[in-house]
Amino acid sequence: MTGTTAHIGLVGLGVMGSSLARNFASRGLTVAVNNYENEVTTAFMAEYGDEGSFVACSNYAALAAALAPPRRVLLMVTAGKPVDLVLRALTEVLEPGDMVVDGGNSHFPDTDRRVAEAAASGIHFVGMGVSGGEEGALKGPSMMPGGTRASWEALKPLLEAAAAVSDSGPCVTWCGHGSAGHYTKMVHNGIEYGDMQLIAETWTLLRALGHGPAAIRDVFTGWNEGVLGSFLIEITARIAGAKDPQGDGPLVEQILDVAGQKGTGRWTAIDAIMRGIPLSTVVAAVDARALSARKEDRLTAAAAFGEELGAIEGIAADDLEAALYAAKLMSYTQGFDLLRTASRERGYETDLAEVARIWTAGCIIRATFLDRVHAAYAADPDLPLLCLDPGFAADLTARLPAWRRVVAAAVSAGIPVPALSASLAWFDSIRLAEGSARVIQAQRDLFGAHTFRRTDAPETPVHVQWSELEQL
Amino acid sequence: MTGTTAHIGLVGLGVMGSSLARNFASRGLTVAVNNYENEVTTAFMAEYGDEGSFVACSNYAALAAALAPPRRVLLMVTAGKPVDLVLRALTEVLEPGDMVVDGGNSHFPDTDRRVAEAAASGIHFVGMGVSGGEEGALKGPSMMPGGTRASWEALKPLLEAAAAVSDSGPCVTWCGHGSAGHYTKMVHNGIEYGDMQLIAETWTLLRALGHGPAAIRDVFTGWNEGVLGSFLIEITARIAGAKDPQGDGPLVEQILDVAGQKGTGRWTAIDAIMRGIPLSTVVAAVDARALSARKEDRLTAAAAFGEELGAIEGIAADDLEAALYAAKLMSYTQGFDLLRTASRERGYETDLAEVARIWTAGCIIRATFLDRVHAAYAADPDLPLLCLDPGFAADLTARLPAWRRVVAAAVSAGIPVPALSASLAWFDSIRLAEGSARVIQAQRDLFGAHTFRRTDAPETPVHVQWSELEQL
Repeated sequence: MTGTTAHIGLVGLGVMGSSLARNFASRGLTVAVNNYENEVTTAFMAEYGDEGSFVACSNYAALAAALAPPRRVLLMVTAGKPVDLVLRALTEVLEPGDMVVDGGNSHFPDTDRRVAEAAASGIHFVGMGVSGGEEGALKGPSMMPGGTRASWEALKPLLEAAAAVSDSGPCVTWCGHGSAGHYTKMVHNGIEYGDMQLIAETWTLLRALGHGPAAIRDVFTGWNEGVLGSFLIEITARIAGAKDPQGDGPLVEQILDVAGQKGTGRWTAIDAIMRGIPLSTVVAAVDARALSARKEDRLTAAAAFGEELGAIEGIAADDLEAALYAAKLMSYTQGFDLLRTASRERGYETDLAEVARIWTAGCIIRATFLDRVHAAYAADPDLPLLCLDPGFAADLTARLPAWRRVVAAAVSAGIPVPALSASLAWFDSIRLAEGSARVIQAQRDLFGAHTFRRTDAPETPVHVQWSELEQL
Repeated sequence: MTGTTAHIGLVGLGVMGSSLARNFASRGLTVAVNNYENEVTTAFMAEYGDEGSFVACSNYAALAAALAPPRRVLLMVTAGKPVDLVLRALTEVLEPGDMVVDGGNSHFPDTDRRVAEAAASGIHFVGMGVSGGEEGALKGPSMMPGGTRASWEALKPLLEAAAAVSDSGPCVTWCGHGSAGHYTKMVHNGIEYGDMQLIAETWTLLRALGHGPAAIRDVFTGWNEGVLGSFLIEITARIAGAKDPQGDGPLVEQILDVAGQKGTGRWTAIDAIMRGIPLSTVVAAVDARALSARKEDRLTAAAAFGEELGAIEGIAADDLEAALYAAKLMSYTQGFDLLRTASRERGYETDLAEVARIWTAGCIIRATFLDRVHAAYAADPDLPLLCLDPGFAADLTARLPAWRRVVAAAVSAGIPVPALSASLAWFDSIRLAEGSARVIQAQRDLFGAHTFRRTDAPETPVHVQWSELEQL
């Protein structure tokens, strides 16, 4: 049969789609490519057609005909309506047992809906997170597919061929049923927001300590050799030292301090609040970006309150490394707590050790740290909180004094450290067996008869008439 | 015509509904009362029928017949499905121009939907927040209606008669179009969460300073005479001194430190994140309640990390008053920022000065502070941020050193102060004209080609190949 020879179809030849198509082809796979605008397909073939085995398809029927069943079609189209349009059109030409994989940053509830819609036609719809940017897509991304187990078995050889590889294997795994893949990617991005904000705060503190651009670069370069070793620390060193092509100073100082965001950080924060899982580091990071965007209000407030900072005292760069590591550990503790909770509540069956493993290479948050997260969950899949792993707990205990000094020094000097301090507040709250919520329960009972429980009889809700109680 | 004599109908005779019905009757109004279970109506009439002019109605047709048109029916039923069921049933017996007011804690998107559904039958559906608990409902609550201006004109005399009254008038106003009333109440509750959490943190610090129960009561009693004067401070004093009826010590120490929440705080936090308006104090409060509920994890973490606290040094009770006031000002600045943004984005036309005014009495967050918020927005309706009001700015500037000392001391000692510190992080972020977001923008451009803007040409997005830049 002519045409039924391609291993995988790729719809959407933007930056990420074309990079992934070339990646698959570079592994010896035949890739059927399609784009809504045929001239994009033509241009792709003209530029990359010689790199490997591609089949240009001008429509979905041609794409279906080019693929060996069960067909595997990867969509790299804009999240939102385009995914629905392409899915419905593909449903017309595909057969039961075929697979449609959405590799964009779709919101997980949309994925759940699409899984159900496609299943009505016998199609396996797979929401898959892809991280690593353009370079990752081309050379090996981290990929987070969800969906049915059957579709995972069929997709596995292709995805493993194209994925990044770390010491622990290819950075792709089945993240769980339904929308688990997109959910996992969402949490990955939320954690990424936290990592970036913590680094930005640490950078500001290094500056306050008097470090110039080259010194900041050297500090980050040094940290990259240690427990903080990671892609984001590595690129931050490069950024710190990068010379402005239009001047003599560092480029970073010429950048407007207004951060963009595309939504996945917010989704993570919102889902966490809905589930009652505090994600203090991620929320602080999302809020910090939102505040950065309010440049005009900041200028007004700076004029009203002044911008003078106090002296930063009693800390050194090593303390910042300790604080950054400890806060990062809190953020990952929170993020994996959310993944576990969502998996239980949504029936994903996500394997946390596997998630940590596929984040060890290819994705934006890749870090040596994640090898240890993988090991922690592999050793104890029921670990209640990541920071309770004996190794991490020891790390944290050793770094607590420095972390406290850093936050106290920043707070005293007036340097904003929302993520460093919110992470610490989370830790200080979780490690107190006796907290202050009893005051809140008393207030709620007094004004709203919401009842409370006594420590000596916790099973029974109690309401008292507070105005009638004797005073001490 | 017999029966067409009642001024207002009240459906749902639970604690809040029956209290409101008695409140209206106490102002000389005739109230038609109805409950889904007729025995509740019968019991109400038996207990309170002599207090004023009530018409017991065993069904909605009787209720409609008892009311003078345009009919005004207040629902005090459980938020959710019951509101829809009653609204649809009432639509059958009401006439165009009649009003149905939902006084429960409905989520504002539901209210928008119901406004549209009722409008199809010519009925004015009014979402109205009611705050003040049972006592407020009986003696005078703060009420926050939205809906059409026409319905407000018709409801105004009845609601003003029943509302709490402060120096600035009856605590009820038109909060804006559509769901603005329920939205305003949601933000009220979010702010209430923040106030309660800040008080609980301050309480913990007073204890750490060595204050016993009676001393804590006396401190709060003193604060209640000053700028913090408010219902919540007043009841906290009472709670601090309340003797355990089953023992000799303070009752509050016998309460399990696990706080409940019913959803409005979460809704506020989520809507704020969606709109990009950081509500750091409220989010910290919502998260603190969620963490309090994880008693088992806290016990495990306490065992792993120990619960020893460091000495709390360099602060006194007066510093705590300053910190509590400053953090409260940040929380209200954030909350009114959200109200303004939502009003603009949703077309509510909310009058912030009026909102502050109707919160000065009757509701849970009532406080002398709100007189000044009212004055600030009355003086300048376009105030970009509440804390920029000259009077508040001066207050804040005077209290900043103490606030910083309090947070630094708590962080150093290991006492969790998530809301005090998140509020400070918000202030430190907003008052810096130059923030650290440039680092984040550089990272995003490096790994995702997201572009950035230069300070010297902010109109043009720029992307650079970071790996090709010269290093300093």
